[in-house]
Amino acid sequence: MPLNTPSRVSEENHLHELQAVISGGAMLRAGRMLDALQAAEVAHLLESLPLAQRELLWALVKERGDKGEVLLQVTDEVRDGLISDMEPAQLLAATKGLATDDLADLVKDLPLAITQEVLGSLDHQNRDRLERVLFYPEDSAGGLMNVDTVTVRAEVTLYVVIRYLRQLRERMPADTDSLFVVNRAGDYLGVITLAALLTHDPDDSVAEVMSLDRRPIQADWSSREVANRFEKHDLVSAPVVDDQGHLLGRITVDDVVDVIREEGEHQFMGQAGLSEDEDMFAPVLVSARRRALWLGVNLMTAFLASWVISQFEATLSQVVALAVLMPIVASMGGVAGTQTLTLAIRGIALGQLSYSNARWLLLKELAVAAINSVIWAAVVALAAGLWFQSADIAMLIAVALSINLMFAALAGAVLPLALDRIGIDPALAGGVLLTTVTDVVGFLAFLGLASWFLF
Amino acid sequence: MPLNTPSRVSEENHLHELQAVISGGAMLRAGRMLDALQAAEVAHLLESLPLAQRELLWALVKERGDKGEVLLQVTDEVRDGLISDMEPAQLLAATKGLATDDLADLVKDLPLAITQEVLGSLDHQNRDRLERVLFYPEDSAGGLMNVDTVTVRAEVTLYVVIRYLRQLRERMPADTDSLFVVNRAGDYLGVITLAALLTHDPDDSVAEVMSLDRRPIQADWSSREVANRFEKHDLVSAPVVDDQGHLLGRITVDDVVDVIREEGEHQFMGQAGLSEDEDMFAPVLVSARRRALWLGVNLMTAFLASWVISQFEATLSQVVALAVLMPIVASMGGVAGTQTLTLAIRGIALGQLSYSNARWLLLKELAVAAINSVIWAAVVALAAGLWFQSADIAMLIAVALSINLMFAALAGAVLPLALDRIGIDPALAGGVLLTTVTDVVGFLAFLGLASWFLF
Repeated sequence: MPLNTPSRVSEENHLHELQAVISGGAMLRAGRMLDALQAAEVAHLLESLPLAQRELLWALVKERGDKGEVLLQVTDEVRDGLISDMEPAQLLAATKGLATDDLADLVKDLPLAITQEVLGSLDHQNRDRLERVLFYPEDSAGGLMNVDTVTVRAEVTLYVVIRYLRQLRERMPADTDSLFVVNRAGDYLGVITLAALLTHDPDDSVAEVMSLDRRPIQADWSSREVANRFEKHDLVSAPVVDDQGHLLGRITVDDVVDVIREEGEHQFMGQAGLSEDEDMFAPVLVSARRRALWLGVNLMTAFLASWVISQFEATLSQVVALAVLMPIVASMGGVAGTQTLTLAIRGIALGQLSYSNARWLLLKELAVAAINSVIWAAVVALAAGLWFQSADIAMLIAVALSINLMFAALAGAVLPLALDRIGIDPALAGGVLLTTVTDVVGFLAFLGLASWFLF
Repeated sequence: MPLNTPSRVSEENHLHELQAVISGGAMLRAGRMLDALQAAEVAHLLESLPLAQRELLWALVKERGDKGEVLLQVTDEVRDGLISDMEPAQLLAATKGLATDDLADLVKDLPLAITQEVLGSLDHQNRDRLERVLFYPEDSAGGLMNVDTVTVRAEVTLYVVIRYLRQLRERMPADTDSLFVVNRAGDYLGVITLAALLTHDPDDSVAEVMSLDRRPIQADWSSREVANRFEKHDLVSAPVVDDQGHLLGRITVDDVVDVIREEGEHQFMGQAGLSEDEDMFAPVLVSARRRALWLGVNLMTAFLASWVISQFEATLSQVVALAVLMPIVASMGGVAGTQTLTLAIRGIALGQLSYSNARWLLLKELAVAAINSVIWAAVVALAAGLWFQSADIAMLIAVALSINLMFAALAGAVLPLALDRIGIDPALAGGVLLTTVTDVVGFLAFLGLASWFLF
């Protein structure tokens, strides 16, 4: 039997068991079980618990030395809740021993008085480092970077570098796969991997062994640009420089993984008007207020659609079949338009769709819509015609559906780019606007044509 | 001026310029510009181009030595298109020099004859390795792993390990941040980082320096479980073992980044019935056929809703205001339910929602729905009552809206877990089913109550 067997099943069971123990209120036993968990697992468990149990568990976790790590691993919203439960002294203790980039993330969520105390408790060098990270927005390369990098000079030998690393040993930052080479002024020159250090002649100079092809990231890049760079080049870490080429720090892949996860959740949850930080067990009143906003926006668009319908009350009261069939026209337009919208939003996020190739997407989507118009207009016309025994209704719904599908493709392709250009996030506003268009056009086309032709 | 300046802006401009050059047909110039791009950038550009231009560019790229890398970087669907454009000899050439995990990804998309030729062209050791990866499904730990790992024995000294690495030098696999320690039988024992190798006394034994806390991943884990493990523990690489604890290979973070990206896109695009591999510029007929399927599913649910409405034709023909207002009830239910559904789907994907805590989510969502029912029922009742000057209609729409919001919360919380349990992907089917429920319940409640009370 090998020493380490895979522990997935036992890990999941452990979480479920602990959840049951906490729900049952056996806190002493829960405390003992907790000791076996790492910070990330505790964070995961906290997020999975409803508020009452979360508070109970947090009371136990607050005593742990790695509570700062736990705070970093939960989402922003859960973190805010946990922090509001802590004494200033505990908060201060939680910030101890964290890397600068992590400390910067945490400090932003702390009350101002605590932040100042944290800054005061750091030595000059670390305070300087922290302030450098805090200077940049959280979602920029500067906000993601860690400033405790190991740098070496190009003219020294590998032997000197290795001796230096031996002195550092325990203080070498985690995830160090490579060292950065700088000149006297602190400008970034290149990178030397630990693998290269190990496998080359110790008498070689850094300049001979270092690699020049790891291009630096500028501190003002957005986190999305950073993530794209990491993905494209399969990076583990990358140097960050200011606009003078001066080395500021490094970004490691673990933070990029979080960026990519959050970007995916942002697109997915934004479509429902939710934030990617949304806590599954947020307090009911907090959730209700946030949801209310989204429902209110939707209500306005729903009333707009109703107003369009009301313009044709006379027609509707004479041909009630129109009321029965009108949701089909609106709904098919919404579904088709959402498909185009989704493709376009992803294209923009990946940097693959811009004004330079939008024309091609629009033409392709219009062609797809034209084909599906023909198919589904025929199917719907046949079904509706047979149902209501009316060739007029069959013809009407076929034409209205085709019009709406074409408008849906147009809106789905154009809206995201237009929103993006004026600085509105298409992942958030795109869906509402699109279905407003497809509802209004759908009802207008179907009922408008009916009023015109049937009377 | 430092050697390496950040090149984001020039990189983006370069892509746009190249796009323009290709669109303009100046292929010689495009070829020269192409030489400056890395494989990942070429892949990005290929994905951004409509089919005709993509073919032109691919004709140039096919001549490059790194065409295999390019093929790996594009999405499955784009890759299929590019491969269909290649001669067998070119395909064989593209597989040269790829790592086993990458080769496995590519081989799955190749015609069978080529696959056999690829296998035949490998030496015994590499064929054995490739077959080991191909044995596991693509979305499992075994399918993600790379089998060319560097292993060492626990009893040797660091000095011996370093001498061994010096011999390997150029043949050391990319992204090697650590070596795996195995016993004579090949069982995984632990890990030794390059940093530890560099900073400890060369006379120490591997056993003294190795770390035991990097638990191995079992080859049959799903890629989602692998991604969660990497995220939780901020890993750069991890060992993969079989159920006997025997070391099979390692997974590196660059492949996990792709998994996380794809999982996010799957959730986002699945909601619109699209695959995460969907090519923005897929051929029109291919797109139209796939979209048609989704539209057809939606059409059936739309007809179901219409059928519900048709049960109340008599009522509708007498009170046409009901036809005007009924989309509001259905639409508000759909929006509210989608919010709950989205939270639940994310919770399941992150492993934070299961049957053990679903009850809490359901109770919380019902409470949120109750609050929003009260608020929006009042607003809608007031607006509709004033609009149609009818207290009856105000009362009716208020009650119907409340009923639908409560059903929406119930369906939004229960559907994803139920679908997950019976093996249907909630990210794909959840939205359609949910809006079917909210449409049917919305129309039924509003028109049903109206028929009952108004007549």
